Amino acid sequence: MSDIPKVLVSHPRYPDAGVRLLKSKFEVIICEGIEREEIIRKCVGVDGILWANCERLDAEILDSAGPQLKAIVTGTAGFDYVDLTEIEKRGIRFGYTPNVPNNAVADLAIGLMIAAARRFTEGYRQIVDESWQLNDPSWMLGQDITNSTVGIVGFGRIGQVIARRLTGFDVAKIIYSGNSEKSEGRKLGATFVPFENLLVESDFIFIACPLTNQTKNLFDKDVFTKMKPTSVLINIARGGIIKQADLIDALQSRSIFAAGLDVMDPEPLTKDHPLTKLSNCVLTPHLGSAATQTRENVSIKSAQNLINGIEDIPMIYSLQ
Amino acid sequence: MSDIPKVLVSHPRYPDAGVRLLKSKFEVIICEGIEREEIIRKCVGVDGILWANCERLDAEILDSAGPQLKAIVTGTAGFDYVDLTEIEKRGIRFGYTPNVPNNAVADLAIGLMIAAARRFTEGYRQIVDESWQLNDPSWMLGQDITNSTVGIVGFGRIGQVIARRLTGFDVAKIIYSGNSEKSEGRKLGATFVPFENLLVESDFIFIACPLTNQTKNLFDKDVFTKMKPTSVLINIARGGIIKQADLIDALQSRSIFAAGLDVMDPEPLTKDHPLTKLSNCVLTPHLGSAATQTRENVSIKSAQNLINGIEDIPMIYSLQ
Repeated sequence: MSDIPKVLVSHPRYPDAGVRLLKSKFEVIICEGIEREEIIRKCVGVDGILWANCERLDAEILDSAGPQLKAIVTGTAGFDYVDLTEIEKRGIRFGYTPNVPNNAVADLAIGLMIAAARRFTEGYRQIVDESWQLNDPSWMLGQDITNSTVGIVGFGRIGQVIARRLTGFDVAKIIYSGNSEKSEGRKLGATFVPFENLLVESDFIFIACPLTNQTKNLFDKDVFTKMKPTSVLINIARGGIIKQADLIDALQSRSIFAAGLDVMDPEPLTKDHPLTKLSNCVLTPHLGSAATQTRENVSIKSAQNLINGIEDIPMIYSLQ
Repeated sequence: MSDIPKVLVSHPRYPDAGVRLLKSKFEVIICEGIEREEIIRKCVGVDGILWANCERLDAEILDSAGPQLKAIVTGTAGFDYVDLTEIEKRGIRFGYTPNVPNNAVADLAIGLMIAAARRFTEGYRQIVDESWQLNDPSWMLGQDITNSTVGIVGFGRIGQVIARRLTGFDVAKIIYSGNSEKSEGRKLGATFVPFENLLVESDFIFIACPLTNQTKNLFDKDVFTKMKPTSVLINIARGGIIKQADLIDALQSRSIFAAGLDVMDPEPLTKDHPLTKLSNCVLTPHLGSAATQTRENVSIKSAQNLINGIEDIPMIYSLQ
């Protein structure tokens, strides 16, 4: 009985598929709430942790768990909330789940692109305000995708799926910017250009780069001034890449046409935030990977990764 | 001076591009308002009419214009508001504008698909109601497009563009139903199936068929019962193809997952219509072809068509 390893799942609403897989191998403890205090109490003596929230994972947790802790996995692609130094110092195996959510994130990006270009927020308001105009050939015109130039800032895996999603859309040109040209660009018919050119040429701009010191507040007043007045900005990466006050000005003054944002700063937005008032802005509450099958796939991969970590098998995705 | 033909543009907000082209050839009269009475008054003695609204075009208008009237064109793909019998009886040339808006309509359809599948309406409400949940792995999960089966009801030109738009989306299967198998199906990787099969198998269903006696109220309680509880319905065709009260029941009872509607019944919707209350329904106010470049293209084609009609050149799109 005591030979069966114990693992903790740190969130009560982790998808069943992954939990079932863990239960087939281990004694599984699941947090009943989302308080850090409960995690600290329940992780004592476990062999593995499936870190299912984005709570800070640091020395306090690791100390509480104890020296037998062998493996930790997260269910996310990013892990800026994880103190990797502390984990490595203790020789704990660490795994994460990159790429599994890419398709779902790219789908959402295309949805935001079309919703912003074709004025979904304003359209809904026109309906409920009873200002729907019938048969006016110049009412509520949006931006065409056909023959447009699409710019992708950051051509990593998600940026590449966005380009692939656009295959059937008759766009004239896909361009991308970033630290270096990618070999995948050619396959996807996308051309590497300097960031400044991308701003000037694009009808649609997708932000798909990580948040770093280099990209923090990258999209500011200066950038919005260079973009076309008919252009649409989509952000599915991190809110901090946009200087949000400047974006609000640009949308209010129509110096760009519209924006579609899955990420904001802060999250959640504060009450009555000006972004929610703009009719040329489409907002979703960080739903990038929030799709049933995607989250099930993530949960299964994470569980398998944790099993591998505890059973001394190479992890599917790991940093060591 | 009297040799220059006179034409009427029946709406004050017709796109400039087409009006400019007409002015290069003809004396152009433009209605200042949208009252039928003004059209009747101003069409007297004209050689051609660019029918720029969806007002009923019938014997009353034709009688008022007079026997010199040679050609009429509409700026729409459909023309259910036109009395073709009266037009033919008088030997008037008639042109319309099919296919030009197809890409814009298909774009909107894909936007509605993603917005409904990924819960845009509910997401926005969660933001403004301050109920945005952070880091909950089971919150607000939508439907994945990857590996899904997409059903298209009516595989005409717009249905075919919808299939093409999905090229880069990793769908498992595209199926379509209609009166007959289409040769374009194979090229687009789409399979012809009976309507009943399409209902049962599809994760997403696009309505892209015309409204006829056969399709009126086609989507009723019986149909919604056969659809998957995870399925998403998109309508960019005509509101009357759906029995709307039954759709509202199906969305309320979650017998289907969500709907995205660009067309409704009636249009505009009445005040506080139940459709506007549903969190699993995305609504746009009949914006199918409402995109700047598309409407400019339509206006240029219509104007050219009217020029051809008056100058005895074969019309680009005509019924005779």
